[in-house]
Amino acid sequence: MMNFYAEILTIGDEILFGQTLDTNSHFICDRLTEIGVRVLRKTTVGDTEADILSAIKDANDRADIIIITGGLGPTNDDLTKPCLAKYFDCPIEINEKALQEVSAYFERRGREFTELNRRQAELPTACEMLSNPVGTAPGMWFEKEGKVLASLPGVPHEMKYLIENEVLDRIKDRFELPIIYHKIIRTCGIGESYLADKIRDWEDALPGHFKLAYLPTLGEVKLRLTATGTSLKKLKLEGNLLMTELSQIAGKYIYGYDDESLESVVGELLVKKDLTIATAESCTGGHLAHSFTSVPGSSRYFRGSVIAYHNDIKKEQLDVPAEILEKHGAVSEETVTLMAENVRQKLGADIGVATSGIAGPEGGTKEKPVGLVWIAYSDKNGTEAKKILFLKDRMFNIQYGSKAVLTNLFRKLTKKD
Amino acid sequence: MMNFYAEILTIGDEILFGQTLDTNSHFICDRLTEIGVRVLRKTTVGDTEADILSAIKDANDRADIIIITGGLGPTNDDLTKPCLAKYFDCPIEINEKALQEVSAYFERRGREFTELNRRQAELPTACEMLSNPVGTAPGMWFEKEGKVLASLPGVPHEMKYLIENEVLDRIKDRFELPIIYHKIIRTCGIGESYLADKIRDWEDALPGHFKLAYLPTLGEVKLRLTATGTSLKKLKLEGNLLMTELSQIAGKYIYGYDDESLESVVGELLVKKDLTIATAESCTGGHLAHSFTSVPGSSRYFRGSVIAYHNDIKKEQLDVPAEILEKHGAVSEETVTLMAENVRQKLGADIGVATSGIAGPEGGTKEKPVGLVWIAYSDKNGTEAKKILFLKDRMFNIQYGSKAVLTNLFRKLTKKD
Repeated sequence: MMNFYAEILTIGDEILFGQTLDTNSHFICDRLTEIGVRVLRKTTVGDTEADILSAIKDANDRADIIIITGGLGPTNDDLTKPCLAKYFDCPIEINEKALQEVSAYFERRGREFTELNRRQAELPTACEMLSNPVGTAPGMWFEKEGKVLASLPGVPHEMKYLIENEVLDRIKDRFELPIIYHKIIRTCGIGESYLADKIRDWEDALPGHFKLAYLPTLGEVKLRLTATGTSLKKLKLEGNLLMTELSQIAGKYIYGYDDESLESVVGELLVKKDLTIATAESCTGGHLAHSFTSVPGSSRYFRGSVIAYHNDIKKEQLDVPAEILEKHGAVSEETVTLMAENVRQKLGADIGVATSGIAGPEGGTKEKPVGLVWIAYSDKNGTEAKKILFLKDRMFNIQYGSKAVLTNLFRKLTKKD
Repeated sequence: MMNFYAEILTIGDEILFGQTLDTNSHFICDRLTEIGVRVLRKTTVGDTEADILSAIKDANDRADIIIITGGLGPTNDDLTKPCLAKYFDCPIEINEKALQEVSAYFERRGREFTELNRRQAELPTACEMLSNPVGTAPGMWFEKEGKVLASLPGVPHEMKYLIENEVLDRIKDRFELPIIYHKIIRTCGIGESYLADKIRDWEDALPGHFKLAYLPTLGEVKLRLTATGTSLKKLKLEGNLLMTELSQIAGKYIYGYDDESLESVVGELLVKKDLTIATAESCTGGHLAHSFTSVPGSSRYFRGSVIAYHNDIKKEQLDVPAEILEKHGAVSEETVTLMAENVRQKLGADIGVATSGIAGPEGGTKEKPVGLVWIAYSDKNGTEAKKILFLKDRMFNIQYGSKAVLTNLFRKLTKKD
């Protein structure tokens, strides 16, 4: 079995000026890796013919597959098509199928089809047109001397459409790729180094064709398990066995796999248990409610929330007595406990969760520094609060505060009775 | 005056595997552009000596300034230091100053200083060490034949620290850069093409050394005005004049400049007018409250919020009568108006704002499709509601819903009486 290599070329002054963050090449790297193509290099050049041509030439010297994004607009500063025509030594002409599709696109939207738009249907004759029903710039597919080159629009959703619907399949048809097994294991409530310690023996015993990567993000650690082989069925069997072993070692930290998010997994657990939830938030200021409601279908279990930023709201809407606030302060076990309990009862939910803390950058004291967050969980059996100390960055404290509540909730909902 | 060119090289398999999104090079492009250095190209290669060396060599052939990030860890798969030693033909040795700083870093944190950590202080002897007080990998600065190369850690906050505190100043010292004037003009409430139409005459009349770029993001359009010259004072005078003209044409859409955000500008307006605000949210589900509370110091004007996801909460916490909900539905002018009015009164705020809509992907009907959002604004003079039709993506509808409320609020707070 051979290995095949790809290079990605993104074109656009706006990327080199630091005006546009290139997320396209990240997406393409991920999808190529998934089908077993190794990305060797990615390059960004500006809207300059010489730079584009030299980058294409260099990439072609090294790789089997070149994917280009950007520079396909109809205006004169978009140079990808003239460069490809020069590189493949062919004229640019109206492609009849492209013309049909582009004009149909404008017709569907009731927009005028101008001369400038017509130029979108002009393509180097050496290419095969890739239909782009979600935009106005068709993609292009070239083959030459055993190598392939795809040129795609820079608009992310158009690029994604063409990768998913045209490019990956063509690459799989054209090259005999290795069989690849991928599994993302999502954990919460444990730091990267603790997780590494916990699963060290399992990791050390992984078969040689399996590789593990740690991908820590905001309060979570993702593990990416990858393997190559000759039979996907065999790899899946091996993978499942490894997953079972991993579950026995670190199961309580694993909340999901692949594309699942913690908030969607918690949501499914609530649906399964026929429970509803409400939140009372001070320091997270709505971010926690937003995490819940970002999940499609969350109206099945999410009742609502009281964001009690000012102490008056804690008193009036959440019935936290003034004496408690005076004696213990808003950021205290006593206050957060009452917030969780009372929001549960007032909003008629089965579970109430609450946050109160000092997000920063101002407002910290020696006893209650910036980054101190109290979280609470309340259900019909009682209420529990936890103290957590985060860092000194406001947005970090807000996001980690929400994640801590979700992690705690996951633990509660999966606890064996 | 000469132009100087830079190339950026990011190193790491994790980027090419699609596991890590490279935001470092975006940041560096932005900061270099700002000081008048033109970025020619950026390249990502994996952790392979031959690829790293060839990329450095190629970049050095084209550019005056090379900035490298990544591959500086203490483990064997981090190859940047050996490659630089080879490229600059020098040994790697313990740098005494680096050793002092790295060991002090561990001491401050009460962490053990291991042999592996000690390797962080080993540097190619040809470099000048760049102190990194925010991490364990020092940066490196090389000069050779009129060109410079900086090698920085890949951890974003360490890279940023070194760019801001070491690299930019050294580049400015070393090269006579053009004088650059930059201004970001931030607009809301107008689409890119409408704004372009509105300011066409102004744009066409810009002096030749001024350039304008349109940068649309989520419900806003940023304009980036750039100019080069020989005197910053003169450019600023010209720029200020152009800003004044622009204000006369499109002033009602301009909410701020440079790093200001719409939520922080709205916050400052509330403080200045000594007004407080509360939100009542259905479809935005907490995202609007989160937008307000993401601003440091928002507790001065943000009272709180009622997230009324379930209709019970609209009835019980926001006093929307059951008959209104039955007759007009939750997504209606009548409901959103009462939500804004009642949250203002119940939470004791001067202003109440509210959202109710169908975020999707489910829940749309022919009369009330996914993407339909009602927003309302209420103060002591009365309440006004607006209907908006967004698209079909849930997160888009949530984010645009919040932005529409903030845009409307900005308009209200800046309206001449």
